[in-house]
Amino acid sequence: MTTLQQILGTELPLIQAPMAGIQGSAMAIAVSNAGGLGSLPCAMLSPEAMRSELAAIRAGTDKPYNVNFFCHTPPVPSAEREAAWRAALAPYYAEFGIDAAGIPTGPGRNPFSAEVAGLLAEFAPPVVSFHFGLPSEALLAQVHGWGAKVLASATTVEEALWLEARGADAVIAQGLEAGGHRGHFLSHDLTRQLGTFALLPQVVHAVKVPVIAAGGIADAGGVAAAMALGAAGVQVGTAYMLTPEATTSALHREALKGRAARHTALTNLFTGRPARGIVNRVMRDLGPIGEAAPEFPLATSGIAPLRAKAEAQGSGDFSPLWSGQNATGCREVPAAEVTRALAQGFHATV
Amino acid sequence: MTTLQQILGTELPLIQAPMAGIQGSAMAIAVSNAGGLGSLPCAMLSPEAMRSELAAIRAGTDKPYNVNFFCHTPPVPSAEREAAWRAALAPYYAEFGIDAAGIPTGPGRNPFSAEVAGLLAEFAPPVVSFHFGLPSEALLAQVHGWGAKVLASATTVEEALWLEARGADAVIAQGLEAGGHRGHFLSHDLTRQLGTFALLPQVVHAVKVPVIAAGGIADAGGVAAAMALGAAGVQVGTAYMLTPEATTSALHREALKGRAARHTALTNLFTGRPARGIVNRVMRDLGPIGEAAPEFPLATSGIAPLRAKAEAQGSGDFSPLWSGQNATGCREVPAAEVTRALAQGFHATV
Repeated sequence: MTTLQQILGTELPLIQAPMAGIQGSAMAIAVSNAGGLGSLPCAMLSPEAMRSELAAIRAGTDKPYNVNFFCHTPPVPSAEREAAWRAALAPYYAEFGIDAAGIPTGPGRNPFSAEVAGLLAEFAPPVVSFHFGLPSEALLAQVHGWGAKVLASATTVEEALWLEARGADAVIAQGLEAGGHRGHFLSHDLTRQLGTFALLPQVVHAVKVPVIAAGGIADAGGVAAAMALGAAGVQVGTAYMLTPEATTSALHREALKGRAARHTALTNLFTGRPARGIVNRVMRDLGPIGEAAPEFPLATSGIAPLRAKAEAQGSGDFSPLWSGQNATGCREVPAAEVTRALAQGFHATV
Repeated sequence: MTTLQQILGTELPLIQAPMAGIQGSAMAIAVSNAGGLGSLPCAMLSPEAMRSELAAIRAGTDKPYNVNFFCHTPPVPSAEREAAWRAALAPYYAEFGIDAAGIPTGPGRNPFSAEVAGLLAEFAPPVVSFHFGLPSEALLAQVHGWGAKVLASATTVEEALWLEARGADAVIAQGLEAGGHRGHFLSHDLTRQLGTFALLPQVVHAVKVPVIAAGGIADAGGVAAAMALGAAGVQVGTAYMLTPEATTSALHREALKGRAARHTALTNLFTGRPARGIVNRVMRDLGPIGEAAPEFPLATSGIAPLRAKAEAQGSGDFSPLWSGQNATGCREVPAAEVTRALAQGFHATV
């Protein structure tokens, strides 16, 4: 049987979860050099930034690394929904003195595309991971064509089977505890989302490809637990968010360190898609899942100026404070040290 | 350090989760005789039935056992809410030819009381577990007075600390994956509920008393995983539901065996309190969390005749099909065999 390490080409079956807006090449380099698989989140990068980050990774490590993309179908913008969203946010625009008419609409996050695949081919990253499904068959063949291994997130047994049937080399079982965007793509019914304890063994039982556990894994004990449930490896995000290699903002770091991090929720207010973050003012005010938020990723532009104004005043009231349900693994130590500490969990399993 | 086995007086740190309506003394006896801690759910038993079941357990085993109670404050019935509930169910009453005027209102489930404590004292059960908090200080002292150990469910770190401070001898960390009623009592905000992977290590870190893991544990791998996350023991319910000792209905058994069990949700439609069950028609129609359902346990009486009529026709459309998110451990084997299979997970841990 092929191990996950053999597929990834790494020493450890441990993936640093890609966290757009929270980290770039520095984190990926540090984790890859420590024996894990470092990841570069690309969803929010321009082609120029992507090229520059990929060059930095190449210069910083000769170990395997992962590049991560979203696979959503860009929505048709709806003037009506955008107006409803702006109306819901109007009291806040007034509070911060923001001219709502001056706020641009825009996509926020672009899906994987032929243009991006062409750019990537120059660098031939050894691993490419996808969220919200997979790209088209042709694009996926292109990725496999340069020898890359393909990982993708599943939040249900059905999604895991779907990904395996379409050529994913390993599946990431993303439990409900995970921070950031839920990866669901076959159903938007959130009651179908499972905790890691329930999702992981069911996915392991259903597919033949290796299964990577994600969601709630904060330390070596969590790694050992995931392996006991049949995981071939783990993907960990939140535990890396206080490392110096992360670009986590100061106010986000403070939230992660305090009692606030005990209460996260899935919210669609920041992008239009449910994602887990620490509960803050706008989530409390509008309800974490707000009817008014337009489709992913169109909610982003309406809330962005509020986030900017509030953050300038030292407030995270309008910021996506992404975090998993278990932030206890967050430590202010280098990413390599987090990686080595997590790796102890592999030795603990039988 | 005192182990959970020492506290419980059992060979194994394994508790069979009390499941009201699903099992009685036969299950408790079988699990206790197999080395675990069998449980008798008492919330729906009359004093006479309780006495009879306790006598049966005494006759069936000399091993320790657990009796389980709810600790809710009985709500003040509201004619307005009851009317809204009946109105929401009216189309179904019409469909089944039920005379709504003839449906009695009633409590459904009674909380732990002085009367019950008096009855229990005659039997002096070695372990008493509570859901939805703890009874009054005086009642709790009475329970401790006959030498019983007290367990109680926590769904957040705050609840675990609260229970420890008030004298619980061990805390059950009930992850979001668990079947049946959520045990939350300090906040009714469901976004505060955590998956087992996130809840368990945080509770273990917060309290000094032993922590029992519950939610999503279906087999030896799940037991090993819980122990790796710091649990002193485990509580397992769903995996026992197909055993011959369970009184699980035929249609409930069918649902547990099929693909339907992959999709559970928290619903308040059957009792007024969020509880996890397999999604069925009434949950789909009214939304699993319905605004119209009166306070716990008053929703029970309005839906009971629909359940009876539908079940008589072989349909579970109006039945609480309680199940955790991981029903893969369900096997049609004696409860002793389920217990022994789960116990293998203790040997797997380091």
